[in-house]
Amino acid sequence: MTIKSRLEAMHLILPEPPQPLGSYMPALDAGGLLFLSGMLPVKDGRPAWIGRVGAELSVAEGREAAKLATLNGLAVARAAVGSLDRITRVVRLTVHIASPPDFGDHAAVADGASLLLASLFDPTGGHVRLAIGASSLPAQMPIELEMVFQLR
Amino acid sequence: MTIKSRLEAMHLILPEPPQPLGSYMPALDAGGLLFLSGMLPVKDGRPAWIGRVGAELSVAEGREAAKLATLNGLAVARAAVGSLDRITRVVRLTVHIASPPDFGDHAAVADGASLLLASLFDPTGGHVRLAIGASSLPAQMPIELEMVFQLR
Amino acid sequence: MTIKSRLEAMHLILPEPPQPLGSYMPALDAGGLLFLSGMLPVKDGRPAWIGRVGAELSVAEGREAAKLATLNGLAVARAAVGSLDRITRVVRLTVHIASPPDFGDHAAVADGASLLLASLFDPTGGHVRLAIGASSLPAQMPIELEMVFQLR
Repeated sequence: MTIKSRLEAMHLILPEPPQPLGSYMPALDAGGLLFLSGMLPVKDGRPAWIGRVGAELSVAEGREAAKLATLNGLAVARAAVGSLDRITRVVRLTVHIASPPDFGDHAAVADGASLLLASLFDPTGGHVRLAIGASSLPAQMPIELEMVFQLR
Repeated sequence: MTIKSRLEAMHLILPEPPQPLGSYMPALDAGGLLFLSGMLPVKDGRPAWIGRVGAELSVAEGREAAKLATLNGLAVARAAVGSLDRITRVVRLTVHIASPPDFGDHAAVADGASLLLASLFDPTGGHVRLAIGASSLPAQMPIELEMVFQLR
Repeated sequence: MTIKSRLEAMHLILPEPPQPLGSYMPALDAGGLLFLSGMLPVKDGRPAWIGRVGAELSVAEGREAAKLATLNGLAVARAAVGSLDRITRVVRLTVHIASPPDFGDHAAVADGASLLLASLFDPTGGHVRLAIGASSLPAQMPIELEMVFQLR
């Protein structure tokens, strides 16, 4: 089953790949790995969420923001390599979560990204993950993803 | 001298590898590198420390937490590749330290991880390292490690 | 045109490579990639800036700090591989920015590093980038860079 058909079966449509916010590229492949720039929960060029998880935003909202950032990452990856079927797996995902000092539900927020990636890429495996609290993120968005994929 | 015998000479016993907190794998190798998920100072499935270094916890406690997270990382790496002797060196270590805005002793905390790794793997070399302050970390733990090893 | 001649044309002189703050190496190559330790805005062994961007420091100061940290990174890379002309491109740059919770101008600060790297290495390409807010950074400096280069 292709990634494309899995996306369709999940009724997911990839957005237009978001534009970089500065002087950098959205994606780059080196040594068989595809590195992505920081993926944010933007929609139609604008932040879909503003604020910190555990303060202005709930865990459920943070989870949705992580899912949206993941879809943006998939759109960027597809634009960079032509087809998601060139991706064999997700190597590493880091979920940066803007959050106050007393926040601790990073795993639940990051699963918004991990569950989507697992259902698309990891039927027999999985990816490694870090979830880390940030004091702030670009344009005060709640989530930023570091994504590394392996290419066939 | 094997890593195993170095561990024994240092009277260090690796814990059971900790379970992931969400939908991801503890470790994954790609292109000769072994990537680990975020390693935390958990013991017997529970946080061994709660709080921020420089606020609720001291630098010495942060350093101990970094050492415990490193032992967890070694346990995960061993479980993933069968033997620590398959690891030729540590490529990169990032030490995320939950800390308040006026904290600055990141290097002393991170050395809790670096010194242990150096004594095991780096008799003639060393690893590269970043030490970064986080607003918060999973389950309000003080330390999270990003670890990348090179495999022979 | 060599990197050396580009640096000269831009009237940029690389500093002495800064010394590690703890038990680690400044740089390490693995699998054709050169990984650098966290690069800070130090000058002559001392922090050139102290404080958070968006609080004690302005965006313009953060940008200058990012540029200085980049020059330190180039000095470290040159010392590690002998000549910057062995570097074919910047793979990934992560700009950690010490900042308060209401900060959002990460992209403008990170461009202090990206524009310098782009003018030296990326005439036909570019690098991928993340910009992330940290609660604190070593010695209370405002910027820390994660840099990965590709070697020819």
